[in-house]
Amino acid sequence: MSELKNDRFLRALLKQPVDRTPIWIMRQAGRYLPEYRATREKAGDFMTLCSTPDLACEVTLQPLDRFDLDAAILFSDILTVPDAMGLGLYFEEGEGPKFERPVRTEKDIKNLPIPDPEDELGYVMDAVRTIRRELNGSVPLIGFSGSPWTLATYMVEGGSSKTFSKTKTMAFEDPKLAHLLLSKIAESVVSYLNAQVAAGAQALMIFDTWGGSLSPAMYREFSLNYMSDIVSKLQRENEGRKVPVILFTKGGGQWLTDIADSGCDALGLDWTTDIASARAQVGDRVALQGNMDPTTLCASPEVIRSEAEKILKSFGSGSGHVFNLGHGITPEINPENVKVLVDSVHEFSEQYHK
Amino acid sequence: MSELKNDRFLRALLKQPVDRTPIWIMRQAGRYLPEYRATREKAGDFMTLCSTPDLACEVTLQPLDRFDLDAAILFSDILTVPDAMGLGLYFEEGEGPKFERPVRTEKDIKNLPIPDPEDELGYVMDAVRTIRRELNGSVPLIGFSGSPWTLATYMVEGGSSKTFSKTKTMAFEDPKLAHLLLSKIAESVVSYLNAQVAAGAQALMIFDTWGGSLSPAMYREFSLNYMSDIVSKLQRENEGRKVPVILFTKGGGQWLTDIADSGCDALGLDWTTDIASARAQVGDRVALQGNMDPTTLCASPEVIRSEAEKILKSFGSGSGHVFNLGHGITPEINPENVKVLVDSVHEFSEQYHK
Repeated sequence: MSELKNDRFLRALLKQPVDRTPIWIMRQAGRYLPEYRATREKAGDFMTLCSTPDLACEVTLQPLDRFDLDAAILFSDILTVPDAMGLGLYFEEGEGPKFERPVRTEKDIKNLPIPDPEDELGYVMDAVRTIRRELNGSVPLIGFSGSPWTLATYMVEGGSSKTFSKTKTMAFEDPKLAHLLLSKIAESVVSYLNAQVAAGAQALMIFDTWGGSLSPAMYREFSLNYMSDIVSKLQRENEGRKVPVILFTKGGGQWLTDIADSGCDALGLDWTTDIASARAQVGDRVALQGNMDPTTLCASPEVIRSEAEKILKSFGSGSGHVFNLGHGITPEINPENVKVLVDSVHEFSEQYHK
Repeated sequence: MSELKNDRFLRALLKQPVDRTPIWIMRQAGRYLPEYRATREKAGDFMTLCSTPDLACEVTLQPLDRFDLDAAILFSDILTVPDAMGLGLYFEEGEGPKFERPVRTEKDIKNLPIPDPEDELGYVMDAVRTIRRELNGSVPLIGFSGSPWTLATYMVEGGSSKTFSKTKTMAFEDPKLAHLLLSKIAESVVSYLNAQVAAGAQALMIFDTWGGSLSPAMYREFSLNYMSDIVSKLQRENEGRKVPVILFTKGGGQWLTDIADSGCDALGLDWTTDIASARAQVGDRVALQGNMDPTTLCASPEVIRSEAEKILKSFGSGSGHVFNLGHGITPEINPENVKVLVDSVHEFSEQYHK
């Protein structure tokens, strides 16, 4: 593997000194980029784009050609794992993801296989290898997975949901069954993420998109527990470097100290928490990633610069901050505004790393 | 006015001793009740139901006939105020509320009138008077309004939104204009709520459904500021009794101490905060209302009872707790489960009021 030219992102996650604050953008390879839309068109459908390593590599690299980003993230979907468990993922135009065979009964759950990451999910590992080769050491590559709770909601509901009533009812009525499901997902995620590291992922992120829909007690029991378990089983070193792990629970601002105790290296923050307050809460335990409201990118360059400055100032001096949005970038954003953000973060942050 | 027979709800909001914890349910007059669906059918459409005092009274009283609830809440909609400001509210089947004339420009905002609550909103005051008469002192009547920020999102977006990008962009790009809009809404809300008190509302609640979508700094500037301003201008005593005010920011669990400093009497809590932790944070300043996950009502009677017990135990001894869900009850709930919850709360809570 070629030597890493820009390791600012990995260093910040480990709170090692950096020259300026690294930045990447959740969903940076996405619909706001005309070149992404063109590749997506060429692929025909979203799953073909995910499952064709050359195309997944192409869209992964697109934002890096445009912007001075400090990390690439594997282009994929969190639902590849349940799909590989046999649920039959499909996308209907204008609607969210759906599963042909949701899991509801004890039998459904007992029959779930743990997918072999180099077999059913081999296309993801091929994409990781292709992207690493094409990156050629320019920036590190982030691998990722959904959290067990988040994946379970899609698997039990059969798709997106506003209330997660079927999944929560399972947790209330038959917690043992819910735990069996979550254990199987966690086991699948561990082997999936470790395979990504073996294939070349240099950092890992777990997206707990729906953990914030739970009460504190249920969050600890049904979401955080499984993320902590996964973190303890991940390969945390490869190619002579640490492989940092980021946990991100959207809406988890009230549970930061709990998440920081999970053994992860960094916390993702949405924009409802002051990053200064988050830093005060977690102290030296973990780095922080975030936390600009994605809607800020609808505003003018002046506003984007000033809001970026506020977040950098709020975090303050020293390493341990990876700049990002607090959630994925949305399709209507003008790519020029992303350039403004990336350049501002690099420019303004130098003063905090002297 | 006839004497109030059950004042447990008002007493709890003022942290005066009670014999058991009072309970009401957000959206208790709603689609989960077959008798509500029948009246809604009779009315023809939702706005006719809201604007016909006899029908609004009928659905307000329906849940009280079934369950031993400690308060009634005016049946209405938070969007009656922007409708009265001339925006043309309408509902499309299967979609959320919409406005024919959203506000976007300085001219739109400057031209907005402050509605006369006994004129354009006279139907609401008539409903309050009718309900008070029909309640005949059985339980207190809650009046309500949306918060200025929450109403502004509908007024600027023209309906529901996932990201509130138009409203937030106005706040970022032209904060003076956003403040003009919010001031006008706040002024309308003050006169609307004071008219409800004059018409017979015995407690008031402000629903800040979308304040939780903001960053902490923007929440304080664009949402909480206006709620505090409203609270300071409300008529807080009537018929020789205090008129308590409840503020509820959904997703506001990180800002409880700020909200408690607003001058309100009680905070609404969603289910992402431990009520024990909320009580520890706000101390003696305010009462707390909440905070069961509405999805709990999809579970069995045993689970509902046990989850109710946990919340009552978490709050602990003494007055200052009004039991409620952390958000509105959903249409698929079996009314029998509501009965289980209401009765359990009364039964289990006696021990905490000895």
